[in-house]
Amino acid sequence: MPSGTASTQLITQHLEASLFPLPIGYRYAAAHAGIRKDKRHDLALIVSDATASAAGVFTKNLVQAAPVLLSKANLKASRGKASVIVVNAGNANCATRTGAKVALDTCKAVAKALRIPVEHVLPASTGVIGVEMDGSKLTTAMPSLVASLGGDFESVAKAMLTTDLVPKRAAARLATKGGTVTLSGMTKGSGMIHPMMATTLGFVMTDARLSPTDLKPMLQRATARSFNRLSVDGDMSTNDTIFLLANGASGSALTVKEMLLFEEALTHLLEDLAIQIARDGEGATKLVTIDVAGTRNEADAETIARAIANSPLVKTAIYGNDANWGRILAAAGYAGVKFDPAHVEIDLQGVTVCRSGLAAKFNEEELKYLLNTPDVRIDLRIQGKGKGRARFFTCDFTEGYIKINASYRS
Amino acid sequence: MPSGTASTQLITQHLEASLFPLPIGYRYAAAHAGIRKDKRHDLALIVSDATASAAGVFTKNLVQAAPVLLSKANLKASRGKASVIVVNAGNANCATRTGAKVALDTCKAVAKALRIPVEHVLPASTGVIGVEMDGSKLTTAMPSLVASLGGDFESVAKAMLTTDLVPKRAAARLATKGGTVTLSGMTKGSGMIHPMMATTLGFVMTDARLSPTDLKPMLQRATARSFNRLSVDGDMSTNDTIFLLANGASGSALTVKEMLLFEEALTHLLEDLAIQIARDGEGATKLVTIDVAGTRNEADAETIARAIANSPLVKTAIYGNDANWGRILAAAGYAGVKFDPAHVEIDLQGVTVCRSGLAAKFNEEELKYLLNTPDVRIDLRIQGKGKGRARFFTCDFTEGYIKINASYRS
Repeated sequence: MPSGTASTQLITQHLEASLFPLPIGYRYAAAHAGIRKDKRHDLALIVSDATASAAGVFTKNLVQAAPVLLSKANLKASRGKASVIVVNAGNANCATRTGAKVALDTCKAVAKALRIPVEHVLPASTGVIGVEMDGSKLTTAMPSLVASLGGDFESVAKAMLTTDLVPKRAAARLATKGGTVTLSGMTKGSGMIHPMMATTLGFVMTDARLSPTDLKPMLQRATARSFNRLSVDGDMSTNDTIFLLANGASGSALTVKEMLLFEEALTHLLEDLAIQIARDGEGATKLVTIDVAGTRNEADAETIARAIANSPLVKTAIYGNDANWGRILAAAGYAGVKFDPAHVEIDLQGVTVCRSGLAAKFNEEELKYLLNTPDVRIDLRIQGKGKGRARFFTCDFTEGYIKINASYRS
Repeated sequence: MPSGTASTQLITQHLEASLFPLPIGYRYAAAHAGIRKDKRHDLALIVSDATASAAGVFTKNLVQAAPVLLSKANLKASRGKASVIVVNAGNANCATRTGAKVALDTCKAVAKALRIPVEHVLPASTGVIGVEMDGSKLTTAMPSLVASLGGDFESVAKAMLTTDLVPKRAAARLATKGGTVTLSGMTKGSGMIHPMMATTLGFVMTDARLSPTDLKPMLQRATARSFNRLSVDGDMSTNDTIFLLANGASGSALTVKEMLLFEEALTHLLEDLAIQIARDGEGATKLVTIDVAGTRNEADAETIARAIANSPLVKTAIYGNDANWGRILAAAGYAGVKFDPAHVEIDLQGVTVCRSGLAAKFNEEELKYLLNTPDVRIDLRIQGKGKGRARFFTCDFTEGYIKINASYRS
């Protein structure tokens, strides 16, 4: 877990719900609208009492779900302002004939109940692709959902889960001259995860006072170094969305220096959420953290790390506690970045297994034991003068992934 | 299976060994040299009595095994001439300290026993990466292996298997003015299969008379449309090699028109071998044939087909007999080719499941039944004027793949 700097503090999901810090001025609600086949909650609201600055990053898939298109349009129309996120699970509302209308009708129902402009509502959906969604279930449920605002943060984090096993949340606190600023985020995602822009759904709410102009590049940079360095299966979703709302309820504006600290806190928070997704990847038993260093630049390091993270052979070897570094070297070799294989050094769990591109001496039995843990680290260094480095997250590849995905729709 | 044209005939592995046609002027031998832990054959020779024209295509991985580097050097030194392929299984001789010496010593032992120039020997290895290979086992076994030349084609195809379940071979015959020309090929490969140049090991021997200058571009084009359109797991090996030997033993040279037919026969033969690899993919229960059409050009069609073939979500859905076309559409959407999702049509087993990017009406239960077969077809068309099309092969993704690869080294 990344730790905060002197003036920031990162708080992860391991805290008791009652100790989890929340930003001022937001309310939450979740309900069962009947989109899911089972009885779990499948519709939720996050509402800022004041109109907030808002930014979003979205999937780069050519095929984009209706709520993604509408959220983009709403953010454009409102010039980066919003006060509500409405999210449903059980149906991605993607490749659907009535998708645009259903998404818009949902936003209208929210706007009407809360008496706000419709473009201040940001919709997000997750679930199966290509199945028409019954919009009346959402609009019918809306008045009572709005009436129940004041529910807990956790209930929203739970309502948007699909094949995830656990809800995922993280928070950060930042001491500023004007007082304490809080950022709290939640995410969902377990499969179809290989972000090229943002993965799955992630929402971060803060009471910091920031302009839409500041918010957007900040979220883009923070996402590039967190959610975009995560892969479960190499499949990029059609619904990937991350929203950041900043309602300013904590008070005074941030100084330039405080904004840099805020961005750092946001990056750590998103990285923490990304790690939680990898750990809860479909069928996963292990979180794998991959550090690549010594490349010409950061982009090259990321490219190599991504190839390793997406290699089914590496991921199955990790599952089998097998120090099969040849597969790691082979994946680095086809990543598309030029380097001299004779300069490669690889560590597994801190044990050097490959030096100068060749087998290093190590105790196989001992390393097998060290690999038999929920946290696996792969370090690949290219010896030389390169200063490029990047960290990437993935999980192991198990029979569980196959079982889940051979039967997801049924 | 692709069928031959009027003047060519493709013969696949389904034939009895005794009926399998062989080119004139080649001899075969296989033995157990002790590289494998078990008792199976692990060393084999293919020898042309006359010096043959020879061409190779090799992995594009930056990390290349010693035999790949030596085969390239030998083909260069001999200006495209060779008379022997020497292949071992059980060790890839890649990322090994002594690799170059072991590969060279092996070729020297072959050259000495057969009294030919060392650069006329083409080495190939397959197996685990990063483990030193005991070259003395190969050189010691060589004299008796050479003495046993005259063995059968099948024994070589068997000796080079790793996790493959069945040996793979195909042959083609071509009627020319100068008489019948025969091409016979074998291949191995089951995992770490995602060719960007050539995948795994494949050897084709022919008695056609062709110059090295004709041979090389012919093999490159044929490989691009066969082995390079195959994926089992998206992992590119460090040892991928395809050799083509043409010893001219059938007699007269080919006319220009016959050369075109020869290339067509070679392409079909390699495609047939690629199909056999997909069908025998690690843990695979199904061969999946993906046809993409209607793109601007062939390269775009190939890019989309490759993304679908590499999607774990598509491959697990196929395993589960699930007509989950949304995953196919999503994979096409992230392939990196521009198209309008509203113009996409998808068929599964000939049943249209997506039309204009939306769900088509089809009988789910019936399609589930149709998908429950070892041969699955995915057709994706982009409606419009595009003439680009490409065919790609893959297999389904099952618990078997995980089991094999979580324990391959142990």
